[in-house]
Amino acid sequence: MTYVVALDVGGTSMKGGLVTRTGEVTVLAGRPTGRENGPEAVVEAVRAYVGEIAGLGRSRYAGPPAGVGLAVPGIVTSATAVYSANIGWRDVPAEAFVPSGVPVRLGHDVRTGGLAESVFGAGRGVADFLFLPIGTGIAGAVVLRGEPYGGARGWGGEIGHAPVWPAGEKCACGQIGCLETYASASALARRFTARSGRTATAKEVVELAVAGDAAAAGVFGEAIEALAIALASYVLLLDPALIVLGGGLSEAGAALLDPLRERLAGRLTFQEPPPLRPAALGTRAGMLGAALLGWQAAGEHDVGADWPIDVLRGGSVS
Amino acid sequence: MTYVVALDVGGTSMKGGLVTRTGEVTVLAGRPTGRENGPEAVVEAVRAYVGEIAGLGRSRYAGPPAGVGLAVPGIVTSATAVYSANIGWRDVPAEAFVPSGVPVRLGHDVRTGGLAESVFGAGRGVADFLFLPIGTGIAGAVVLRGEPYGGARGWGGEIGHAPVWPAGEKCACGQIGCLETYASASALARRFTARSGRTATAKEVVELAVAGDAAAAGVFGEAIEALAIALASYVLLLDPALIVLGGGLSEAGAALLDPLRERLAGRLTFQEPPPLRPAALGTRAGMLGAALLGWQAAGEHDVGADWPIDVLRGGSVS
Repeated sequence: MTYVVALDVGGTSMKGGLVTRTGEVTVLAGRPTGRENGPEAVVEAVRAYVGEIAGLGRSRYAGPPAGVGLAVPGIVTSATAVYSANIGWRDVPAEAFVPSGVPVRLGHDVRTGGLAESVFGAGRGVADFLFLPIGTGIAGAVVLRGEPYGGARGWGGEIGHAPVWPAGEKCACGQIGCLETYASASALARRFTARSGRTATAKEVVELAVAGDAAAAGVFGEAIEALAIALASYVLLLDPALIVLGGGLSEAGAALLDPLRERLAGRLTFQEPPPLRPAALGTRAGMLGAALLGWQAAGEHDVGADWPIDVLRGGSVS
Repeated sequence: MTYVVALDVGGTSMKGGLVTRTGEVTVLAGRPTGRENGPEAVVEAVRAYVGEIAGLGRSRYAGPPAGVGLAVPGIVTSATAVYSANIGWRDVPAEAFVPSGVPVRLGHDVRTGGLAESVFGAGRGVADFLFLPIGTGIAGAVVLRGEPYGGARGWGGEIGHAPVWPAGEKCACGQIGCLETYASASALARRFTARSGRTATAKEVVELAVAGDAAAAGVFGEAIEALAIALASYVLLLDPALIVLGGGLSEAGAALLDPLRERLAGRLTFQEPPPLRPAALGTRAGMLGAALLGWQAAGEHDVGADWPIDVLRGGSVS
């Protein structure tokens, strides 16, 4: 049985996995990225982790990995981690992350999650859609003609900083009225505290809103309105067949999707809004997309479409 | 010498041309679309005009056209004019527009203009850019990986109805705060009159603004701010290499481009704004793009890149 090593490298932690040709997934315990030790140390930590996972694969499946796929933040090509403000690296070649001689391919973190949702997740069979994970921050994977699209230089997808209220609240980025400053999970918590004097997580704010708490309902309603405005612009510009909502906030389910659907429709005159659907792969989308990149590195570009959606129920090693 | 017949079919008038394989252009006098006579009459008028232009081609170049290209409004595939609210037709096959047996290809009006700007206009050699004609209305051609992109169902590019001031002025479309309601040429004229009690064309409003008229400067400044907000969202989402501004308003030149460049940069934190450039092909972009479609219909897909930018200075017949 052949397999690949897949790694989702975030700002603070890395999630690793072993994934076979037929979609058998072994999920490994995450570990810190260690960015406080500087970019060289992060590259070293990734290489060590990849080596360990490959060692596990060797003992489980006999033989080296067919490839390695890595989802990384910032600006990235398939061969180079060009830049990450978060980690601090510049122009790290993909080969630096893996034991010598193993084929490797890099991808942008959000777009790699979008790739997984596209191939065997909520966007399976849909060529043109938006994958929008809403977590601490907001960034999207714009999937066009079946492929995640990063723009001319790889900066695309930053819908979280689109100005939805151009004379509104100040965003941490320095701009005014960004989507993220109203609708991210951290914005929900922050704005609820500012309005009510109480402390709550984003999840609790949604629960309070559903239960009828006025401050929570106000803040959650404004998050939904901000999402509706940003998505109306997206729909008008790119006419997607589907919008897939992911990240922590999408766990609110119908409490988010039903009013968002209604408000988005209210912001559109000519178009029917596309269906809104929750993501299928949860926080593992990045690692699973990295597995697809690993198979691409191994020369196998049509892997994954036949994987069962319950890839997440594969074995887990900690 | 082989040639194609090219037609840009607008809501009120049609512009026709004969274009050879090497980019020799003969521009014909426009004529009314005649939509007041109903959609069947429009199809008939197009077919008659195509036949006449082909007759001229026959006498000039000896032989029938190699193909016909038509830029049409609304929803369109290369083989069918699916829908136009403006003209009223539904599901008209491309063959209905041409004499029997001539290869034909349709394209969306704005995207066909974008195709021409992409192949031999202001976007020549640029794979990823926005072509934004600003006229009576505003709609864009989103050029991605070298091709105009219309979205899942062909409704893409409608940036004119993106909500830039979501609690702002009412747009004719029924929505609130659309870009078009602040920044189109008709909006400039309308808003200037509302503010000053005076009447002026959009061109005159720009001239008055440049000359220091307070009402005109206010209205023109708000148009530029609305464009900056919409373009900031575009840049964040799609990271274009270039923005090409066309239509009547782009004739304002530096009076538009310089402040827009500055305000767009002011709305972006992470990204350098892409260059802003005026369109190269003026009001003939649609007809010239239709010529490219005609060549595609004839099986020639790599025509045009070597055409001189002064294709517009070809012969003119009226």
